[in-house]
Amino acid sequence: MAGSSHAFQAPRGTRDFHPADMAVRLHIERAWRTASINHGFDEIEGPTFEHLELYTSKSGPGIVSELFSFRRSGGETDFALRPEFTPTLARMAAALGRGLPVPTRWFSMPMHYRAERPQRGRLREFRQWNIDVIGIDGADGDAETITVALSALRTLGLDASSIRVKISHRAVVGRLLADLGVPAERMAEAQDLLDKRDRIEAATFTEKTTALGLDQTAIERFAALGAEPVPASTDPTTLAEQLNVPAEAMTELTELRAELERRGVLEFCEWDFSIVRGLAYYTGTVWEIHEASGGERAIAGGGRYDTLIEGYGGPSLSACGFGMGDVVLELVLRDHGLITEAAELMPRPDAFIVSIGGDDTNHMVVPLLTRLRDAGLHARTSAKTTSNLGKLLKDAGKCNARHAVILGGELSDGNVVVKHFDAGEQATVAIDDLIAHLTGSDRA
Amino acid sequence: MAGSSHAFQAPRGTRDFHPADMAVRLHIERAWRTASINHGFDEIEGPTFEHLELYTSKSGPGIVSELFSFRRSGGETDFALRPEFTPTLARMAAALGRGLPVPTRWFSMPMHYRAERPQRGRLREFRQWNIDVIGIDGADGDAETITVALSALRTLGLDASSIRVKISHRAVVGRLLADLGVPAERMAEAQDLLDKRDRIEAATFTEKTTALGLDQTAIERFAALGAEPVPASTDPTTLAEQLNVPAEAMTELTELRAELERRGVLEFCEWDFSIVRGLAYYTGTVWEIHEASGGERAIAGGGRYDTLIEGYGGPSLSACGFGMGDVVLELVLRDHGLITEAAELMPRPDAFIVSIGGDDTNHMVVPLLTRLRDAGLHARTSAKTTSNLGKLLKDAGKCNARHAVILGGELSDGNVVVKHFDAGEQATVAIDDLIAHLTGSDRA
Repeated sequence: MAGSSHAFQAPRGTRDFHPADMAVRLHIERAWRTASINHGFDEIEGPTFEHLELYTSKSGPGIVSELFSFRRSGGETDFALRPEFTPTLARMAAALGRGLPVPTRWFSMPMHYRAERPQRGRLREFRQWNIDVIGIDGADGDAETITVALSALRTLGLDASSIRVKISHRAVVGRLLADLGVPAERMAEAQDLLDKRDRIEAATFTEKTTALGLDQTAIERFAALGAEPVPASTDPTTLAEQLNVPAEAMTELTELRAELERRGVLEFCEWDFSIVRGLAYYTGTVWEIHEASGGERAIAGGGRYDTLIEGYGGPSLSACGFGMGDVVLELVLRDHGLITEAAELMPRPDAFIVSIGGDDTNHMVVPLLTRLRDAGLHARTSAKTTSNLGKLLKDAGKCNARHAVILGGELSDGNVVVKHFDAGEQATVAIDDLIAHLTGSDRA
Repeated sequence: MAGSSHAFQAPRGTRDFHPADMAVRLHIERAWRTASINHGFDEIEGPTFEHLELYTSKSGPGIVSELFSFRRSGGETDFALRPEFTPTLARMAAALGRGLPVPTRWFSMPMHYRAERPQRGRLREFRQWNIDVIGIDGADGDAETITVALSALRTLGLDASSIRVKISHRAVVGRLLADLGVPAERMAEAQDLLDKRDRIEAATFTEKTTALGLDQTAIERFAALGAEPVPASTDPTTLAEQLNVPAEAMTELTELRAELERRGVLEFCEWDFSIVRGLAYYTGTVWEIHEASGGERAIAGGGRYDTLIEGYGGPSLSACGFGMGDVVLELVLRDHGLITEAAELMPRPDAFIVSIGGDDTNHMVVPLLTRLRDAGLHARTSAKTTSNLGKLLKDAGKCNARHAVILGGELSDGNVVVKHFDAGEQATVAIDDLIAHLTGSDRA
């Protein structure tokens, strides 16, 4: 082998998509795109890399170690592969200024990049579906984003027994943490610890909570936050009393509950005040979708970020949205047996042409393929040189063709035999009627 | 504005795709994907970045200045954003080894990156459609790739009067250059100069051809190569005599001509021995598609590269293919008036819900949107608080909806009024029959 061996492998944490892998990826993308479009979202995209400063200006220089950053040879500015879409979205929205329609509903599904050690469910390159609603202040905006996310997941076969939307609110979490004794100046640190709680060692957790000034009881209560799922059918006001939080802290969640109910998705949802989301820009409601058994990372995460667009130099507009990556989602779909045979997800040929007449019919294959393809049909043939019908039909079956078009002795009368695999039928068809027959337009 | 201003713009040579831009991009992608699938190609994809060595091992260290390359902080290997897809394809094919089906037909349409100064038709980030046929030795493989390219371009509205496939062959070009006096050891240099001929100054051209050892007559003949287009209906053997090239150098092109004729695309093609393609890996037939007036860069370029897969450690398999970028193609489509109103390319709502009954009907909007979307329909409504039918219908028209569903006084009898925009008709429909009415399934 020429060169050193690693150059001939995909970089660690990235993926090669062979046709069967690609079929799964496109199956997921179709569900994302269809849900987005049906809910009135318009598709956008931005560059794969941005000025590094787009990220450091909001997240600080600490983010650089998590990014793949680079500079063009001879260039003067640093770039970074986008780790998420929201800064690009905020930049694009800000650039439109007053030209941005209100409300705006945008979606995208680009690749993102993290310079981290790859783990199960977390790769260095991944595709992420991003949904954003700009300019809707009320809880109907949040409810809409949750509904779109669920629409795609339901299309993919997940139901309320297999996934849970865990809903929280930054202000409520803040009250709970204050109540445990977290001082105001260490609130961000405490929220960050809460977000990472499940991914750190028990000893580290105790050490860090103690460092926050919490006593043993408070540490136990901190650890227990969100341990008992509360169905979203529970009125948040009732919850406020139980949690010793002022009722007014629950106003937005009470509205959200009503909006989720109107959209028929309340059964998927629960209140979970251990959810804070790691990103600094969230300002209110935050939520995550998890596989019900809790065995994988979050499938999706989102919330409200009402100051971000203004922060990027745009108008003062509220916004909310979410991101859903393809890596965890595919694991969950496989865990639930919802992706079994990738071949079934691949595009089905309308016609698989089979020539069994030797030289008498072989020369007809390419012109017929051309005619069918010119008519917009998906047409294939076998690469085998055999005239054995059984072997050729096996090839047709392998690529899951809808019809085999058999070129044999009938061709001398201008006819072909069409085998319809799903119906288990076959018919002799005049070659000039073949396209109409294959498209079903002869049955109109 | 926070931060410095450049961070709030897309990096130079990259693009923000707002919804109307994205609609054009998806229009092009649909044509690419449909042509690929209909011709029996399977979709694949690879990582956005590869080990830098994947590129330098075949193209030499000189390529580094044309790439965006980087290293993970603390990492030990260099990566590069992919400038083209062929090395990834060859790597993927090589990795399968004997498991690679023969023939294999693959397509992809990922982003690619060049660290060059952006120019008209040439950006730093662009999408490229890649088609590859592996394991077909004969000219039918080349003809197939040309036919697929033309299929997509014809779907997009281009015809034989607007685009030309310029076909050449490395061996023929080699004979022609040798005939002009280019010594064998400077052949690569001469081919490179021929490839760049149109993009360099006249003085530089004379200087470089003189340096190759050509006399004035030879320089003029070098400059005139390909100046007169020869229709592909001309038999290459006839051409061989005119060009003083041995007839056997034309064998593959003669076969190709027959294969193009069988596929009905000969009228798009011409012989042009100024085409060599810049990339080092081509071994035989090479071709480019150009806008007929020659005003833009090449729309597509491809050819045969029979040693590449083996060069990446795979089995010895012939291969041919092409790349078609989105940037030049979009310019050509616009030049020819084939992209006019982007709004017409955006997904059309099946239903635009209009509430004109005030409080009596407004509360019905969200539940009805939910019902339609749950049924897989694309449903929208207006963000306006007005009950003015005219204004609301104008909103429906703006997003090119197929139907307006009007919630008014009829709702008390369980009915809605459905306005069918294209047909200019309207009907009163029971709300329970609405989905069947909108999908046309009530007419079965």
